Amino acid sequence: MSELRRDPIGGRWIIVDTDHPNRPQDYEYEPATWKTGSTCPFCYGNEALTPPEISSVRDPHTHANTPGWQVRTVPNKFPALQIEGLIDRRGVGIYDMSNGIGAHEVIIETPYHGKDIPELLDSEVENVISMYCQRALDLARDRRFKYLLIFKNYGPAAGASLEHPHTQLIALPMVPKNVKEEIDGARNYFEYRERCVFCDMLRQEIDDKERIISENKYFISFCPFVSRFPFEIWIMPKKHIACFCSTSPEEISALASILKDVVTRTKKLFTELNYNFIIHSIPVNLDTNPEGYHWHLEFMPKLTRVAGFEWGTGFYVVPTPPEIAAQVLREEKLSYSI
Amino acid sequence: MSELRRDPIGGRWIIVDTDHPNRPQDYEYEPATWKTGSTCPFCYGNEALTPPEISSVRDPHTHANTPGWQVRTVPNKFPALQIEGLIDRRGVGIYDMSNGIGAHEVIIETPYHGKDIPELLDSEVENVISMYCQRALDLARDRRFKYLLIFKNYGPAAGASLEHPHTQLIALPMVPKNVKEEIDGARNYFEYRERCVFCDMLRQEIDDKERIISENKYFISFCPFVSRFPFEIWIMPKKHIACFCSTSPEEISALASILKDVVTRTKKLFTELNYNFIIHSIPVNLDTNPEGYHWHLEFMPKLTRVAGFEWGTGFYVVPTPPEIAAQVLREEKLSYSI
Repeated sequence: MSELRRDPIGGRWIIVDTDHPNRPQDYEYEPATWKTGSTCPFCYGNEALTPPEISSVRDPHTHANTPGWQVRTVPNKFPALQIEGLIDRRGVGIYDMSNGIGAHEVIIETPYHGKDIPELLDSEVENVISMYCQRALDLARDRRFKYLLIFKNYGPAAGASLEHPHTQLIALPMVPKNVKEEIDGARNYFEYRERCVFCDMLRQEIDDKERIISENKYFISFCPFVSRFPFEIWIMPKKHIACFCSTSPEEISALASILKDVVTRTKKLFTELNYNFIIHSIPVNLDTNPEGYHWHLEFMPKLTRVAGFEWGTGFYVVPTPPEIAAQVLREEKLSYSI
Repeated sequence: MSELRRDPIGGRWIIVDTDHPNRPQDYEYEPATWKTGSTCPFCYGNEALTPPEISSVRDPHTHANTPGWQVRTVPNKFPALQIEGLIDRRGVGIYDMSNGIGAHEVIIETPYHGKDIPELLDSEVENVISMYCQRALDLARDRRFKYLLIFKNYGPAAGASLEHPHTQLIALPMVPKNVKEEIDGARNYFEYRERCVFCDMLRQEIDDKERIISENKYFISFCPFVSRFPFEIWIMPKKHIACFCSTSPEEISALASILKDVVTRTKKLFTELNYNFIIHSIPVNLDTNPEGYHWHLEFMPKLTRVAGFEWGTGFYVVPTPPEIAAQVLREEKLSYSI
């Protein structure tokens, strides 16, 4: 019989197929391939094709918007939200609306069109994550912004519109619904038990062992007991800390290493994989910080499609139990150690 | 500048691109085409390939599990949940779980493999919807079930695993998260204003006119002001009524007519379209019924992909404002009137 599992943060149920679990080879997913195409605006030498850069990691004595960079942040050419203007919240009959104020930046992870995280050096991944922190800290100084979302779409099925590996950062003038739910869930748990729900998850995962993939001094990666997607992976700091921006240089190095490990294992198992990852962190510029929150990264391989059942209920059907997913990922032979 | 809009039920924000709206021809969607394949278990004459039928609309003097049917309900051969057994809710450390008890039925809408709703006669669509009601009423008699979800996935990109048009019905032993949120939102609105939020939406849509697609005596179809997806359409009964099962035969006939109208218009605009629709109705077997709820059907064409931003925030980016979508759908020339 299948198992129903309920997550202790948002109260979401999932259905895990424990009777006939899917093995990696059972997934027929759309490969992350692209129609060969037009000039890539993110490639080395094409710096003039993007809006002027906001920040970069680059060789000394090279100039902005010219070659010489390793990581480059530019405004999104087609931003979902604009940085200039007034928010102007107002009612329209029974509805609420406001102007689309916010920021929408693109972090180009590497000058090389075909290199994703597994193909980068550890130090290069470290530069990318340092850039996330730096941009988030800078945008947080704008008091209009209440939430900063850092996320990556890799592959067309994961919603990427360009092939060249990149991450996006969106600053929002309000705390979005999904974040509010997660924070409220964590706060309710904290008020009831006086403990952080994420720390409790971590403790239970460490005790159970079977869902852990890898770990280092500061971070642990595991397939959560209540995964929404098959082969979903969370990377969590071992220390209870609410804000991603507070990550120290030493921790950034450890995060780069475990992120590369996780993406490499998953892409060895599923070639041409489309995936998303999202950094879940605390809102910014709040008067009081909610208790019991713990930042983490959620990595979601795109192996299944969301259909009517998921839209209608918020339930997710998971064809591979996380226990099996973690075991398979742990057993992937890697040519290096983290 | 883009517009941010907030829905008054769940508090979800969307970003509407009012500056550079996408026209229908701007969408590059995956067509609903299938690898030609193996024998279809839902086709006329292949009745022995499904589990024994639960109910059917069929010619007099024909026998169950033989030809002679127009609509046929069978148990799902690979059910997400099983009907026999005990729910057995229990804790596992900080998590909750239970056995996967529920029902999972498939309503085969027509004996013809290649006929979707637009190709059916009005009376045939009416038979399908009558079957929805009949099966929901029957399953609601099982007091273990708290929610009945009726939904259709059409096309592989919408999550269908078989090409032959069919609808699914899943009975769940708990009220799922998304439904609970919708009901809580409607109840909060009702407590504050002593009015149904859906009736208020209907009134505002009727006043504004610009988002309405079509209407008949009992139903109205419109692109909601806060659509999550481009060309999203809601069909709503004009009468305030919480439970889909209470629909009278005359209303079922009107619903069939407007559903066929909406699917036909959308599929004329987007050939080979993948889509989902979901019937949102009140939970069953509750001790007290929540106030201010109003059943409706949500139709979602699969034109865009959900990516990291949507997963991380619950925000949706809508490239075509619903005002434009409704106008384009209204102007589609149809060979009949509803």
